[in-house]
Amino acid sequence: MNLRIVLVRPRNPLNIGSVARAMANFGFDDFVVVSPYDPVWRETVSAVGAESLVLKAGCAKSLDEAVGDCQLVLGTTTGKGRSLERPVVKLHELGAFLKKRGVNDRQKIALLFGSEKTGLGNAHLEKCNAYVTIPTSSATPSMNLSHAVAVCCYELSKKESQTSVEKTLMATADDRERLIKHILQLFEAAEYLKLDSETLKITKIRNSLLQWNLRMSDVRLVHGILRYMTQRMKPGPR
Amino acid sequence: MNLRIVLVRPRNPLNIGSVARAMANFGFDDFVVVSPYDPVWRETVSAVGAESLVLKAGCAKSLDEAVGDCQLVLGTTTGKGRSLERPVVKLHELGAFLKKRGVNDRQKIALLFGSEKTGLGNAHLEKCNAYVTIPTSSATPSMNLSHAVAVCCYELSKKESQTSVEKTLMATADDRERLIKHILQLFEAAEYLKLDSETLKITKIRNSLLQWNLRMSDVRLVHGILRYMTQRMKPGPR
Repeated sequence: MNLRIVLVRPRNPLNIGSVARAMANFGFDDFVVVSPYDPVWRETVSAVGAESLVLKAGCAKSLDEAVGDCQLVLGTTTGKGRSLERPVVKLHELGAFLKKRGVNDRQKIALLFGSEKTGLGNAHLEKCNAYVTIPTSSATPSMNLSHAVAVCCYELSKKESQTSVEKTLMATADDRERLIKHILQLFEAAEYLKLDSETLKITKIRNSLLQWNLRMSDVRLVHGILRYMTQRMKPGPR
Repeated sequence: MNLRIVLVRPRNPLNIGSVARAMANFGFDDFVVVSPYDPVWRETVSAVGAESLVLKAGCAKSLDEAVGDCQLVLGTTTGKGRSLERPVVKLHELGAFLKKRGVNDRQKIALLFGSEKTGLGNAHLEKCNAYVTIPTSSATPSMNLSHAVAVCCYELSKKESQTSVEKTLMATADDRERLIKHILQLFEAAEYLKLDSETLKITKIRNSLLQWNLRMSDVRLVHGILRYMTQRMKPGPR
């Protein structure tokens, strides 16, 4: 994803630093700030690990200047109270939206965030190709600026269909059956099954064991315990 | 999603407020703080729109107290440099992981975040059923605490395609701790732990039990077996 984060008229330099950190966390480094309120906005105290990103961030005088070279301009908005004549895409559906549009890594996407107080104004919104909205609670819809950037960067950094390979060696049906057999041997040594309906207890053990997602390391551990316990059983009263 | 956010030893009250805001943005309101460093931690200046969430947040003296009633305990970690004997799940795969485990809305999930400086310690990590990791850039892996919470809450607030209603009563963290304690009682009666490095065995037992997705019926069954076996131990050679 060839992404540029654009902050339009941000007020708080601490937020700018936090945004840089969030971007860096997810591997993004194209950062442009449009007419920041504070003339000394290159504050790095909140940009832990991403100080250089603040220092080399672009500073544009206008939104046009900030997004001129971008193939796609996306504005973030709560999507409420405005008559938006563009597609409004929920953040978690943005990947599919971009794919449908045939966006590839050679195309630069600008993602715009407005100021902390007012968000993007109409003059900014009309420059966008589409709007992105983060589905938030209606009771507390307003997000912190750097949180919003963090969530967007997280979503857009996801590797598609990247399933992690499960390397743990899991027990097979045979392994489980051997384990059940071993448990029954302990029960016999302990004369446990004679106290109750034998088959019911065995059924219960099986019900439990077969739902436990046992790994081979679990199986070995339990065999070891069973072996020891079986030896330690005292002869029962006859 | 029945989610509890648990901050373990957070240092900065501003972060606690920011976490509350991020939670509220995504509709979560179960918030517990374990032994905050700062005695005046109920700072609401950063909890814009979520002041009440900070004021009513639980304050626990220990992690056990904070998660005792939870069916599933998940620790957030960078997943690096530690030998973790539990599943490590990428945040965007957590939904599928929970579905596979049959987690439903009646089960309380605790999601733990460590302190800003050190993350979760080993004593916390060993209480977890699994670990969640947010895939970040290797160049700037360390996220701001409230950013991490925001990203997790965003991901977990996504509406899943309606899963079938699971009615099984699952064991809580307290139930599992009691079971481990009972197992150790049997081991003591059997003088099992004297044969080997005690702590290693206990760690192994914990590693296994916490991954087995135990139901209450399993717990009752195993308690019954343990009670019987403990009685039947013969005194060992002195």
